[in-house]
Amino acid sequence: MFHRLALIGCGLMGGSLSLAMQRAGLVQNVIGYSPNPATVQEALRRGVLTETAGSAGLAVAHADLVVVAVPVAATGSVLKQIAGQLRPDAVVTDVGSTKQNVIDDALEALGARAGQFVPAHPIAGKEVAGVAHADPDLYRDRLVILTPARHTRIGPLQQITNLWEALGCKVQTMTPQAHDAAFAAVSHLPHMTAFALMHSILHQDDAADTLALGGSGFRDFTRIAAGDPAMWRDIFLCNREEMLRQTEQLIASLHVFTDAIAKCDGEALHALISEASEARSQWRMITRDENARL
Amino acid sequence: MFHRLALIGCGLMGGSLSLAMQRAGLVQNVIGYSPNPATVQEALRRGVLTETAGSAGLAVAHADLVVVAVPVAATGSVLKQIAGQLRPDAVVTDVGSTKQNVIDDALEALGARAGQFVPAHPIAGKEVAGVAHADPDLYRDRLVILTPARHTRIGPLQQITNLWEALGCKVQTMTPQAHDAAFAAVSHLPHMTAFALMHSILHQDDAADTLALGGSGFRDFTRIAAGDPAMWRDIFLCNREEMLRQTEQLIASLHVFTDAIAKCDGEALHALISEASEARSQWRMITRDENARL
Repeated sequence: MFHRLALIGCGLMGGSLSLAMQRAGLVQNVIGYSPNPATVQEALRRGVLTETAGSAGLAVAHADLVVVAVPVAATGSVLKQIAGQLRPDAVVTDVGSTKQNVIDDALEALGARAGQFVPAHPIAGKEVAGVAHADPDLYRDRLVILTPARHTRIGPLQQITNLWEALGCKVQTMTPQAHDAAFAAVSHLPHMTAFALMHSILHQDDAADTLALGGSGFRDFTRIAAGDPAMWRDIFLCNREEMLRQTEQLIASLHVFTDAIAKCDGEALHALISEASEARSQWRMITRDENARL
Repeated sequence: MFHRLALIGCGLMGGSLSLAMQRAGLVQNVIGYSPNPATVQEALRRGVLTETAGSAGLAVAHADLVVVAVPVAATGSVLKQIAGQLRPDAVVTDVGSTKQNVIDDALEALGARAGQFVPAHPIAGKEVAGVAHADPDLYRDRLVILTPARHTRIGPLQQITNLWEALGCKVQTMTPQAHDAAFAAVSHLPHMTAFALMHSILHQDDAADTLALGGSGFRDFTRIAAGDPAMWRDIFLCNREEMLRQTEQLIASLHVFTDAIAKCDGEALHALISEASEARSQWRMITRDENARL
């Protein structure tokens, strides 16, 4: 489907995409760039890359597909570095968890070529970062959100849709605004809350003794608190307004619960928990398979 | 080890303990009582009980071990019902997630016999309730906290310690105050926060569309939000002061994060996330095996 993939950023997300595309026969060559030479060597060793380039610009010069897989706040800077070398028929995409900022960055960096950029967010990840954890099955059966802007060209949008579908994903299109609002609620705020719970315990007396008592509920609730600091710092900052709005909503909900506890209002508390528990019991993660069964 | 176990409350926790004890050959007969006749029938059918009793008092009349496995706010009422029938050499214990209230209830209900009561909290559970989910492996390798009061007799304490160790658990002793404070932080507050996140999303526009976008992070973070309403209502109310204190601490930590986001202070945010992420990456759940390796 593609001859030459240029991978800018060789971490978990980009590395897994390269491995999946190669295994599916969707790309012949993968040329990569990372500012960290050790990362590039590890990516070569693991077969994530077939070639390396000395800069992001050199990497994209002959590529028909460019995947920018860096922390979301760095996407704009990468797009500026590659703008001059981009082939006129190349398709550019990303894998970032925030979308409006990336669309703004693409418009500024690529100008008239911004239509070649297709903003994408595959809903997949691990709590460990780096190319050493790259996994060709990371995206299998997962949901991928595309958030085309008005200027996004239909050809590249279709190519990126086909690419993710060929990897076994379910592709869904949303506006960037709706994307950023929804993911603040179901992903970014849960991550920040898991970090904040760790922060809260770590800054109390007897933190080590307390943490040692965590069971399977604590284990699962805080799994995402092991996330990559640079990645999550960028996501929180790039989705700033939605993060602040969603945090306010969560704190308001926490107060609804503590008000019932403070008043010893068992009936209200039971109703609150029942509503949440029923909704969560019925919830299922959307995957390609799930969709196929509907 | 025991001749006759009286199980008061035949749900997930009590049912799993009965199955585990029978499999390990630690008990010959299990007589059970639940106010719900359908529960008793299901418990008989699943081998959780070998006999049934018409009341809690009748169930304990000839038992040398009594396990009270009901939502924590109901423990006092059960202890009052059985106080008159309890054998003088019987050991009484529970499996509840809060301990100070249960000790107070035992003192009031059992009076001079309160020394026969050993307060216990096995750190295990599932997000589904009921005897239909009882599982003889629920407690295997898990941590069990005992919180003896000053009046708890040493003989019963040793018997309950031996019982859990024979089931493959690691037993640890704490004061009830330290227990309730620590479990508010690592268990009760995470549960309430997971319920509150569901509440927050459910009460915003487009709740169904937003929930449909949750991925594996959302799945794991909210797994405990499917918990049993009656059980968690009781825990929150019975650990009221610690819940209110821990919620305040969490909200303060959330504000530390949102302050850095509001100020676009990437450096502070990176430091906050790194601290949490490193602590969570190093964290391991204590199990008997984990302990054996230390």
